[in-house]
Amino acid sequence: MSLVELPGGVCATQGVTAAGVPAGLKPSGRADLALVDAGRPVAAAAVQTTNQVQGAPVAVTARHVANGRARAVLLNAGSANVCTGPDGVALAEESTAVVGEALGCDAADVLVCSTGLIGVPLPRERFLAGIPAVVTALSTEGGSRAAKAIMTTDTLVKQAAVRVEDTAGTCVVGGMAKGAGMLEPAMATMLAVVTTDAPVQGPVLRSCVRDVVAHTFGRISVDGCQSTSDAVVVLATGTAANTPSLSAFKEGLAAVCGRLAESMVRDGEGASKLIRLRVTGARSEGDAVGVARAIAGSVLVRTAFAGADPNWGRILAAAGAGPVAFDPGRVAVTFGDITVCRFGVVTAFDRGQAVAALSGREVRVAVDLGLGTAEATFLTCDLTHDYVTINAEYTT
Amino acid sequence: MSLVELPGGVCATQGVTAAGVPAGLKPSGRADLALVDAGRPVAAAAVQTTNQVQGAPVAVTARHVANGRARAVLLNAGSANVCTGPDGVALAEESTAVVGEALGCDAADVLVCSTGLIGVPLPRERFLAGIPAVVTALSTEGGSRAAKAIMTTDTLVKQAAVRVEDTAGTCVVGGMAKGAGMLEPAMATMLAVVTTDAPVQGPVLRSCVRDVVAHTFGRISVDGCQSTSDAVVVLATGTAANTPSLSAFKEGLAAVCGRLAESMVRDGEGASKLIRLRVTGARSEGDAVGVARAIAGSVLVRTAFAGADPNWGRILAAAGAGPVAFDPGRVAVTFGDITVCRFGVVTAFDRGQAVAALSGREVRVAVDLGLGTAEATFLTCDLTHDYVTINAEYTT
Repeated sequence: MSLVELPGGVCATQGVTAAGVPAGLKPSGRADLALVDAGRPVAAAAVQTTNQVQGAPVAVTARHVANGRARAVLLNAGSANVCTGPDGVALAEESTAVVGEALGCDAADVLVCSTGLIGVPLPRERFLAGIPAVVTALSTEGGSRAAKAIMTTDTLVKQAAVRVEDTAGTCVVGGMAKGAGMLEPAMATMLAVVTTDAPVQGPVLRSCVRDVVAHTFGRISVDGCQSTSDAVVVLATGTAANTPSLSAFKEGLAAVCGRLAESMVRDGEGASKLIRLRVTGARSEGDAVGVARAIAGSVLVRTAFAGADPNWGRILAAAGAGPVAFDPGRVAVTFGDITVCRFGVVTAFDRGQAVAALSGREVRVAVDLGLGTAEATFLTCDLTHDYVTINAEYTT
Repeated sequence: MSLVELPGGVCATQGVTAAGVPAGLKPSGRADLALVDAGRPVAAAAVQTTNQVQGAPVAVTARHVANGRARAVLLNAGSANVCTGPDGVALAEESTAVVGEALGCDAADVLVCSTGLIGVPLPRERFLAGIPAVVTALSTEGGSRAAKAIMTTDTLVKQAAVRVEDTAGTCVVGGMAKGAGMLEPAMATMLAVVTTDAPVQGPVLRSCVRDVVAHTFGRISVDGCQSTSDAVVVLATGTAANTPSLSAFKEGLAAVCGRLAESMVRDGEGASKLIRLRVTGARSEGDAVGVARAIAGSVLVRTAFAGADPNWGRILAAAGAGPVAFDPGRVAVTFGDITVCRFGVVTAFDRGQAVAALSGREVRVAVDLGLGTAEATFLTCDLTHDYVTINAEYTT
């Protein structure tokens, strides 16, 4: 099986068009309304937030995708349309009808995702007035403009696409995403649209998406905060002629989602470095993820990373406060290639080397529980002054 | 029943002496070794961390207090004696023997608590050599010197004492504590020693202590991080002649522990304000605490507080990601006296007034779940640039 990177993001998949336009939803006047169109109703699946407080678009998208079919995804920044009452739900519904009318399809074949502030109503006139403009702008070159239009505190446009090939055939998977803060669990807190020409549908598509999301967007944390708007939507056109095996398709999907997830952590609010946290020696993969999540969720650990401080005791304390049982006397902690703790006690390590291993744009941290053979990799970033600045001033 | 504040901290209780001396455990040369002595073996109880990674002194103290009796508590800053292997446990044991010899009591009647860095061995010679000095320094005036000697990143000395009086009689409760970061759950992450002359002992004392700790130290959070060294130790001398009712004693204990807990949050690492978070309308008190803990645990909520940003959506999102079920459509959020959200949607509030309500050294935030009559108050603080500075540079 081979994977080749492609340009184009969501438009890497043949027949998919996209666009991003300014609709006046962001005070900055930047592009804030995006549309991804598969050209006709195709197989679709979505994984959404498990937060008890959910945005109006989350409910509408869940209803519309329940039949496993969709044609287009409307996305906006500027307001998440969360905690906006019945008006918010009515507006989300109405927007799918307006898109459906413009594209010539059922409202039920249109999904909607919103991101931005919670509790701020989405300005109805401007939101709806932007739809004809974004439909008119649809093009096979529009992938990155769509990806740009959904950015909030993001500083990098997040796109990825690959061609997957095995002896049976070939298919394309392309995607875009936004997300830099309120990034955590159950799945990462973000929006992503992924397209593919693989003929995968129904329960098989849903199970592929769920599984891949759990292993990619589900294994990153910027701040341990879960949003109310998370959605990963996959549109599968099925136009590929000779398609690879299902497992090859899944690897392609995992590659695209994995790259998008990693780009979110790299672009984490205020982040100065990516932490690649590997937990090994666990009794189960779930245990490994649980320990990693407890460590990545500790603000003390993440501020120590900001200072390149080899304060491994905080890693053990964070893991010990978590829900997964382990034996502290068996734990080893390694920064880069420098093992600082073995059997739960400090080793004679060179402090300068440990600091060096924690410096730079990308850092490897390994925690071996010494209990079994299961492992997991989890991505997080450091907690810096800039994170505080960004989040103390977000609405002001 | 009446409560009157007293000076003296742990020494407010008659017969208790205390001391704090420099033993060279902190590089600064400040006092770092403390002793509290009840003068003879008295009733004792302790509540300790539930972290899976526990300090050597936690294990030794648990063993020594199991019989409900103790005479003295040795405390040090500079090293938490955690993740230090069998040598760490042996040293903790040895220190109780050295104190016992100097005081003329069994090692088993001496408890030990350590705070400071994890994984750094406690320097044996200096630690043990300091004990004769701290025993010699014991005095009825030594309460605040003992309280000072256990400070780490604390900037305020934490002491409180009250006289409790009802128709049946009177008793005294006095205490000291340390704690400013790694402050959270199960109970707050800190050390505290409380003395009283009330004749309470055995299972009754244990249950009083557990209950009061759950309602005081158990309801604060500075950073959601649990330490490996938490301990609240209560020594009850029983010398009070006419003692008040058990419930009056418990109120006195709650007053002292509550004041110590509040002073920890006020002194939270980098904190610029105290947040008094009141959750009402819950189905149970446990639910109210659970919702409060989820909100206080959100770094997005706490950075918004730092910026006096009335971003109530983050409060709902944090509560919604938590373990307690509620109906977002019934929730109201109030900053000071300004209700910003009612029935889960934004109200027409004055933004300037809301910002004003979130400014200043102390802020009230109320969340009404609209489901029942139970409530709880929880204390936390804002997450500021200074928190990042303090914790990015703690060991470096």
